Amino acid sequence: MADVARARTAEIIAVGSELLTPFRLDTNSLFLTGRLNDLGIDVRRKTVVGDDPQDLGGALTGSLERADVVILTGGLGPTADDVTRETVASVLARPMHEDAAVLEAIRARFERRGAAMPAINRRQALVPEGARVLPNPNGTAPGLTLELDDHVIALLPGPPRELQPMFDAHVLPLLATRWPGRRLHRRVLKVTGRSESQVEEIAHPIYSRLSTPEVTITTSILASPGQIELQLAASGRQPAAIDAALDAGVEELAAALAPAVFSTDGRALEVVVCDLLRARRWKIAAAESCTGGLLLGRLTDVPGSSALVLGGVVAYDNQLKIDALGVPAEVLAAHGAVSAEVARAMAEGARRRFGADVAVAITGIAGPSGGTEAKPVGTVALALDGPEPVARVVWFPGDRAMVRALSVAAGLELVRRAASRLPA
Amino acid sequence: MADVARARTAEIIAVGSELLTPFRLDTNSLFLTGRLNDLGIDVRRKTVVGDDPQDLGGALTGSLERADVVILTGGLGPTADDVTRETVASVLARPMHEDAAVLEAIRARFERRGAAMPAINRRQALVPEGARVLPNPNGTAPGLTLELDDHVIALLPGPPRELQPMFDAHVLPLLATRWPGRRLHRRVLKVTGRSESQVEEIAHPIYSRLSTPEVTITTSILASPGQIELQLAASGRQPAAIDAALDAGVEELAAALAPAVFSTDGRALEVVVCDLLRARRWKIAAAESCTGGLLLGRLTDVPGSSALVLGGVVAYDNQLKIDALGVPAEVLAAHGAVSAEVARAMAEGARRRFGADVAVAITGIAGPSGGTEAKPVGTVALALDGPEPVARVVWFPGDRAMVRALSVAAGLELVRRAASRLPA
Repeated sequence: MADVARARTAEIIAVGSELLTPFRLDTNSLFLTGRLNDLGIDVRRKTVVGDDPQDLGGALTGSLERADVVILTGGLGPTADDVTRETVASVLARPMHEDAAVLEAIRARFERRGAAMPAINRRQALVPEGARVLPNPNGTAPGLTLELDDHVIALLPGPPRELQPMFDAHVLPLLATRWPGRRLHRRVLKVTGRSESQVEEIAHPIYSRLSTPEVTITTSILASPGQIELQLAASGRQPAAIDAALDAGVEELAAALAPAVFSTDGRALEVVVCDLLRARRWKIAAAESCTGGLLLGRLTDVPGSSALVLGGVVAYDNQLKIDALGVPAEVLAAHGAVSAEVARAMAEGARRRFGADVAVAITGIAGPSGGTEAKPVGTVALALDGPEPVARVVWFPGDRAMVRALSVAAGLELVRRAASRLPA
Repeated sequence: MADVARARTAEIIAVGSELLTPFRLDTNSLFLTGRLNDLGIDVRRKTVVGDDPQDLGGALTGSLERADVVILTGGLGPTADDVTRETVASVLARPMHEDAAVLEAIRARFERRGAAMPAINRRQALVPEGARVLPNPNGTAPGLTLELDDHVIALLPGPPRELQPMFDAHVLPLLATRWPGRRLHRRVLKVTGRSESQVEEIAHPIYSRLSTPEVTITTSILASPGQIELQLAASGRQPAAIDAALDAGVEELAAALAPAVFSTDGRALEVVVCDLLRARRWKIAAAESCTGGLLLGRLTDVPGSSALVLGGVVAYDNQLKIDALGVPAEVLAAHGAVSAEVARAMAEGARRRFGADVAVAITGIAGPSGGTEAKPVGTVALALDGPEPVARVVWFPGDRAMVRALSVAAGLELVRRAASRLPA
């Protein structure tokens, strides 16, 4: 337990030839990195190798030279392609033995499904000497941990629904016990309706004030279409001082960026909107043109949204805007489909026809075609009908997918501001 | 040019501390792997390291020991965090010099935007001796290639819209010239409405027959919600024989899996549907309940879909199914919202009210709540109204997101089969 204050490091090795094709990414490393960071353990390198003992052996040897913790994912199945168990035993020069209890558990799993265990699965009961076996309630491949003098090695199955509960049940407590004390504390502010550089310009002068003599806070900024995340992190052994410094930082940044900050507790924009609708007892409807259903699709991603979302109309066609939403033909003719006037009429029609408390409308030119000099691709009209109606025309940069994603975020943000009585 | 028949290998190193957080994945490697595979170059390892010269230097040294081609992405910006250029020069022991032409190009890029070049950007004009500079029309960071006796090294900017055109314009021709002859030939069959094990059971006996004495075909199967991909690949120096063997394999597999194969040319299901609608001069409408707009959202992802998609109604609420779609209240009362009868009435209502040639309807229980013993979570009713109406109730496994994704795929598949006159 010496040297307890040193930051521990980890490397993650994902094993699987399918992860070296143009079609598959290793996503387990995101989950694992989050959990390791929470324990105050930095991930210094991620490696993907194929189902090849030599490639994997070389990668593992390198990781053991650099890192305290090595997590290997995948390659624990029953086939000859699954080389992780054997390769780890070979690199550590440890013999393997067949574990009777593991064999019995695999056999029982097959029996519960009314099948005999195929002979090939017997391989999954091989365990390197000194390894601890981690039961897998969600699959046949057991996991393994090895505690060495200087290292912890964990072997976990590739499927996320097997890996995640196994990590939390067995690897997390092992690491927390072995290296107690240091924890990474995080905060995240989520912002919409601002560009990365706008957020950076406001936030940057504040960053330097956040750290205290006791607590060093690191900051990072992450942009995705329609959302900017500001992340604050600090680690150390005084949790109360760290939490206080981080909370003060969140407060200062949120005040400086208000009202564009929609979440300081990790919730996504659509979840914040649903929570506000629930609190207000509002039911919502939507009228979408260029976003083609994506706004409603995102709102209804939220479990329980069926009590809040009445529905809406996707009116790509102008005649449909007239027939299904009651947009006056003369308003369409006078202003064009992408105009504040038509967006307002769409929102009014959706609210009235569906008996909603609030309705949001989006009509725009997502491209690649359809733009004009007066209304180039990216021109989007947004409106909200409700207690305080809003309508506006904005311009979004980017390709079709980007314009649609930014439009959905802007539409949800209109609802958020209306439901939280912020100026739209 | 000796040893031309040996399969060349590549490694990809993604540089950036943000790629070692729980929030960001390196996705450039998928694009790069596809392009390298097309050239007959295998990717043997992918590594992610932070903005640290020692970590990157160690990773690069290792890659140069193993691979013919090393592609580094990211870390070419102007700040002190951007260490790729300097680290590569240091590992190769090559001095750096400031390239006047590069400096001028960066300066001009800023001037075109009406700004003076910040002094910090001068670093981006530093070039290791012997490197070739790759212009970047989409950003300030130029790329670099280095041709060594045994290796090609490429340094590319991280943003995909800068990296991809730069790779295609400069790195691809360089590699194709240096190691001509071997190419990877690929085919892909896309299947919907079948499980991975159903597809595997039919396809597996065929795999072994596909290879010929001259051509070895490798196969792989990739499952994602609502879609199974069968991939065939072969490489070698007789393109005509390889193409013939692959085409014969595609034909045999497509016949065995018909009518569930929707694409043998790489097109996504929503693109196939739009192409069929265009060919038939059909306009489509949709009525969605549990999918909440996702089917329309996916159809309208396709550029040009505005000429084919009239729109639709998202009717989460039962009253809306009555008001906006004309579902008879007594049908709802008699059969419940999730029933073939209600789905049929929704499809009829959408087709009639929107004047569409074909309409698809989805109503189901996506969960996590709302299930009953008779209609558990995952129960979904689908209907199509058009020349030959169809309605059915199915059950989909999985969580809310999975049930919604499978429902959208099943709805699109109903349209595909109707538009291509296949039995639904």
